Amino acid sequence: MTVRISEFQNHVGESVTIRGWVYNLRSSGSIAFFQLRDGFGFTQAVFSKNDVSEDMWNQIQSVTIESSVSVTGVVTPHPKKENVFELQATAVEIFQIAQEFPIGKKEHGPDFLLDNRHVWIRSQTQWAVLRVRSEIMTAIFDWMRENGYTRLDTPILTANACEGTTDLFELPYFEEKKAYLAQTGQLYLEAAIASLGRCYDFGPVFRAEKSKTRRHLTEFWMMDAEAAFMTHSENMDAQEDMVCFIVRRVLERCRQEFEIVERDVSKLEAIQKPFPRLTHADAVSRLQKMGSDIQERDDLGADDETKLTNEFERPIFIEKYPAEVKAFYMKRDPNDETRCLNADLLAPEGYGEIIGGSERESDLDMITKRIIEHHLSPDVFSWYLDLRRYGSVPHSGFGLGLERIVTWICGRHHVRESIPFPRLLNRLEP
Amino acid sequence: MTVRISEFQNHVGESVTIRGWVYNLRSSGSIAFFQLRDGFGFTQAVFSKNDVSEDMWNQIQSVTIESSVSVTGVVTPHPKKENVFELQATAVEIFQIAQEFPIGKKEHGPDFLLDNRHVWIRSQTQWAVLRVRSEIMTAIFDWMRENGYTRLDTPILTANACEGTTDLFELPYFEEKKAYLAQTGQLYLEAAIASLGRCYDFGPVFRAEKSKTRRHLTEFWMMDAEAAFMTHSENMDAQEDMVCFIVRRVLERCRQEFEIVERDVSKLEAIQKPFPRLTHADAVSRLQKMGSDIQERDDLGADDETKLTNEFERPIFIEKYPAEVKAFYMKRDPNDETRCLNADLLAPEGYGEIIGGSERESDLDMITKRIIEHHLSPDVFSWYLDLRRYGSVPHSGFGLGLERIVTWICGRHHVRESIPFPRLLNRLEP
Repeated sequence: MTVRISEFQNHVGESVTIRGWVYNLRSSGSIAFFQLRDGFGFTQAVFSKNDVSEDMWNQIQSVTIESSVSVTGVVTPHPKKENVFELQATAVEIFQIAQEFPIGKKEHGPDFLLDNRHVWIRSQTQWAVLRVRSEIMTAIFDWMRENGYTRLDTPILTANACEGTTDLFELPYFEEKKAYLAQTGQLYLEAAIASLGRCYDFGPVFRAEKSKTRRHLTEFWMMDAEAAFMTHSENMDAQEDMVCFIVRRVLERCRQEFEIVERDVSKLEAIQKPFPRLTHADAVSRLQKMGSDIQERDDLGADDETKLTNEFERPIFIEKYPAEVKAFYMKRDPNDETRCLNADLLAPEGYGEIIGGSERESDLDMITKRIIEHHLSPDVFSWYLDLRRYGSVPHSGFGLGLERIVTWICGRHHVRESIPFPRLLNRLEP
Repeated sequence: MTVRISEFQNHVGESVTIRGWVYNLRSSGSIAFFQLRDGFGFTQAVFSKNDVSEDMWNQIQSVTIESSVSVTGVVTPHPKKENVFELQATAVEIFQIAQEFPIGKKEHGPDFLLDNRHVWIRSQTQWAVLRVRSEIMTAIFDWMRENGYTRLDTPILTANACEGTTDLFELPYFEEKKAYLAQTGQLYLEAAIASLGRCYDFGPVFRAEKSKTRRHLTEFWMMDAEAAFMTHSENMDAQEDMVCFIVRRVLERCRQEFEIVERDVSKLEAIQKPFPRLTHADAVSRLQKMGSDIQERDDLGADDETKLTNEFERPIFIEKYPAEVKAFYMKRDPNDETRCLNADLLAPEGYGEIIGGSERESDLDMITKRIIEHHLSPDVFSWYLDLRRYGSVPHSGFGLGLERIVTWICGRHHVRESIPFPRLLNRLEP
């Protein structure tokens, strides 16, 4: 019977077959040990020379690291560790003997590992991060569904450089047209709320940014959500609820993965509602007291974000930024027209911004004025302005950067490990 | 209390408030009727002049089609229709009086509707199709999860034109590099199965095809799935199971949507396992008997697909195509080396191919030979060939075109209605 390693607990004492890869092995005279993985779990198979034919023993000896095999044996509990099982192996079948595997036990530099990303993803740490990423996406889908959001895929190829051409990838589109790769689907979601009430997208977005920091990728996954009749404050409630939902979900389902990446899960267990909500003005004054030279109307830099979040064990909202550092579509605070009804959500432990959101300006004249103030062309926004002509409603939304959330939740250093095949300034392969 | 229209059944006899858009209205002296939608459902609000103040009555009279409003009233059952409710309205609050809405009751041409896609999506039919699309995606996520597939997002920006540069969008990538927009994530998934066992992606793909048929988009959503140790025949079993799962799910959850698009659901109820499996050779001989001039080693054209599927009420697999009409990575049939272990799944009712899949060639020498035979360069595939060097395993996978599935399930004519913002040869906006 062929089973998955993750199902061993249901087959103790039974003879089963598993199929996978030998990620490590050793042999001591009459006993051979294979460290095996099948994509679902990890185990050790123990072969005894006395229990197998000479031909089989020779085959076992021929196996190299990363060879693909099927192994048959009896599942036994690990003598010391609870919920760990081994295979007392009786037979091996070889699919392919691997050539010498490029990734060994020694330390490799990041460039070497990225050049070999197509096989580096086999390492336990990368496996764990990719599984957590998948679980986080699933949690987001589930939260969205439970909260009445319909999935709506927004286009990647767009005709207009909505917020200016900086950092946009441009390409020829058939004869004489030009297209740009989308940086967000927000404007399209704003159109769709008049059909669906609430909707979200979740897809790749692109920034042709020449930054080489640990937080930057040129292609990354973003979830944008938009809801009709939602206020700025309800928008923060929604984000808070979603982040707590994600964290609970991964704590439930990813214990093994967190062990592998050595994540201190107590830091995740501390993520509970409510999240502190600081105004930008409060944040600046706190930062100034900490010695930062940030000025009253400055955007927060990455260092500022790190300093602030180190004071809290939960994510924190920074709300009501000066309008001049934020996008044209954000609604202004009625109590201070120079500030936006927006909030950035900063992850704890110095991981920086993970979500940005705001209430949107819904008045036709006002948003037209803002477009002009931002040196953009109202012509380019003609369809977007229609949304304010035909039944405009108060609405809010937010955008979540998946890789940043994954990096924070897995406690990794660089976002490049939080996406299967990272695209960076100098990296398009593999 | 603010509720959604879809929750009316729980509030019969209560006074509630709903917020949404007036998609139609009429007034007859002392009674006014608003047809309302809130993104979750549709209802009618009835105002009586005698029950409201003069000022409120004047406000009601000022409302135009697509104006955004909040309406308060008592939920009552429809006098004749079961499970239909109305609102005996007592108050209205206006968010915005809409300018004259461009889409009226008269017939509009497809270009006009596509130019106004940002508001056309508000129509009931488009709402229904978008909801079904979202439900189908959710069903696919759920099926994947239940069947052990981990989600793995494959890159859009790729360095190499893997299957030749035809139909690829090309763009400059920073200084001197070129990038191409992905047409499939399959090769990356083949890398990832050695980490995750089974995985899938689901994202936009791009074809710079100059076709203007009802089945073509330049940007569309594709789900690719790949599984280690899966044979050609198990691969078909998996697709069959997934398609049945999707159909059951939408039949459960999308009854209202199918009514709106006037879908004959009996056609969907007929979708049951097993699906007929014809070989390409069988298909050709059937087609020839029907009068087609298809030759023994030809690929099936769209007309051929339509003719064949009209004979069956279930989707059908056509398997084992001549190798020369299929991709290099497909494993050959051991019983006939000139044919592939592949299958295309054709939807009933003439909707054509919805899934294409195959077992993959796993032998290093053989796949290198195929690459050369297909006039491709093994250098370009260096990382892909590594997968056959380090623990190659038998494996299979398939790719599903979302818009084609949505078009079939909703019984629409053109794929352009099955994606929120279609991109066509001559269309990049809105």
